Amino acid sequence: AAHGARKMEDYGRFLALLASTLLVGFVSVILSLVWVFHYREGLSWDGSAGEFNWHPVLIITGFVFIQGIAIIVYRLPWTWKCSKLLMKFIHAGLNTIAMILAIVSMVAVFEFHNAKNIPNMYSLHSWIGLTAVIFYSLQLFLGFAVFLLPFAPVHLRVALMPIHVYSGLTIFATVIATALMGFTEKLIFALKNPAYSASPPEATLVNCLGLLLVIFGSLILWMASRPHWKRPPAENAKILRPIGATSEGTEVESTMTNSSHADKSDLRSNAEAARKQNTKFDEAGQRSTM
Amino acid sequence: AAHGARKMEDYGRFLALLASTLLVGFVSVILSLVWVFHYREGLSWDGSAGEFNWHPVLIITGFVFIQGIAIIVYRLPWTWKCSKLLMKFIHAGLNTIAMILAIVSMVAVFEFHNAKNIPNMYSLHSWIGLTAVIFYSLQLFLGFAVFLLPFAPVHLRVALMPIHVYSGLTIFATVIATALMGFTEKLIFALKNPAYSASPPEATLVNCLGLLLVIFGSLILWMASRPHWKRPPAENAKILRPIGATSEGTEVESTMTNSSHADKSDLRSNAEAARKQNTKFDEAGQRSTM
Repeated sequence: AAHGARKMEDYGRFLALLASTLLVGFVSVILSLVWVFHYREGLSWDGSAGEFNWHPVLIITGFVFIQGIAIIVYRLPWTWKCSKLLMKFIHAGLNTIAMILAIVSMVAVFEFHNAKNIPNMYSLHSWIGLTAVIFYSLQLFLGFAVFLLPFAPVHLRVALMPIHVYSGLTIFATVIATALMGFTEKLIFALKNPAYSASPPEATLVNCLGLLLVIFGSLILWMASRPHWKRPPAENAKILRPIGATSEGTEVESTMTNSSHADKSDLRSNAEAARKQNTKFDEAGQRSTM
Repeated sequence: AAHGARKMEDYGRFLALLASTLLVGFVSVILSLVWVFHYREGLSWDGSAGEFNWHPVLIITGFVFIQGIAIIVYRLPWTWKCSKLLMKFIHAGLNTIAMILAIVSMVAVFEFHNAKNIPNMYSLHSWIGLTAVIFYSLQLFLGFAVFLLPFAPVHLRVALMPIHVYSGLTIFATVIATALMGFTEKLIFALKNPAYSASPPEATLVNCLGLLLVIFGSLILWMASRPHWKRPPAENAKILRPIGATSEGTEVESTMTNSSHADKSDLRSNAEAARKQNTKFDEAGQRSTM
């Protein structure tokens, strides 16, 4: 009974964190709209500043908020009864939406720059931002080919999963860092009389937006890296296969948050290992009923 | 023999990554010096631009490079025969040096601003940078009180270690993001005729420096989050104590990179668990001789 109470308390803590994360992300999107509509030229698609303004709005909505949700979608306990394949489609789908919005938001900047004869790709913001988009596309393509399509052998999936998780989190953090550089650039360029250094209300608003993105990113990274909040491994896969031939179910375990499968190359095949694995399955089974 | 060869290959891979990381960090420090001596006013302590220049040099040297090394110091295989206490002193010592350099570098900016009548603390860079320094100080103080001083009970250490690891990595990433904002600000403010947008050599140099910091940070995060590169748990502690009373040795395991101890609250005390633990000790013992 004490054990069950502790599980419920942990579940409550997860929900509270999730609600806070969604709130911070939602407020960030709203603030980006307040910024462009109340302090800037609103939204348009005509080479004017209104076209540029799609850039922060789409990056914050797609490349930060939606990407963040895509990262933690496997962590939502009420999805653990859904098939792994369905969750992979949702994960890949959200990331695809995020990528499309990121690309549209870049087109907006390039068209704005070209219309105003401002050089492209000179700033550190643009260098790191473009690098992040390229790595994100690669990550999406490789993730699709290896984890969603049914062709990749299990040992390849097991070998690539920790890299997939690490790259995903690193790209996500880099995207937020790039957004912060973008805020810095825009505030310095756009605010004259009063300048950024005079702290007009717009500067305070966007500084707060930057802080919110850092908080959003930190919350996503915390939720993604708690091992006990992970989706439990697939149960029948565990029961039906011999231990050496790692099943798809172990995929979710072989992330950067896990070391129990750290030495994948040491395939255990004795009865000892089998019993260990079954203990593990029992724990997972217990957890998925919470 | 095949197993031993694999261990050696993994050791070689760690050394190659470590060498790359040190090289990237070292080149970053050099580039920061080239920046301030070749393109800027050099270093001084008189309220002039030369005093400001201590800011990037000390942040890159201390808050990025030395903090990065402090993070991975437990990962160096040749230190695994040193006592855990010695390694804690080195970890805490490097972080203390990093904090002192970060504080001196902030003093340099404040003095420069005050001498030139430039407002302090208006930019997103300053907001997030000061927040990072405050959290870093808290982290250092708490780490010292809980993990280095001998007073904290084991259950508190076990409970706080995942938070310590998560905070450390998140602060480190935030510091790099803040440095990128700082580069952006400085290049926009300092480069006139030719401006930043005309991509003069100084702009290219500092953009490359920014990319190097992102690469350095990514390498440190990769090394810190590979579970099989962790310092093995203390051996005698493992042997001598019952399983329920978690020893100090398990501290190193209860980080964000590990899930085998995820459910700390489920204290296992049966023979089954003891046998499991011993298997683990065997693996660790094997590893520390590689």
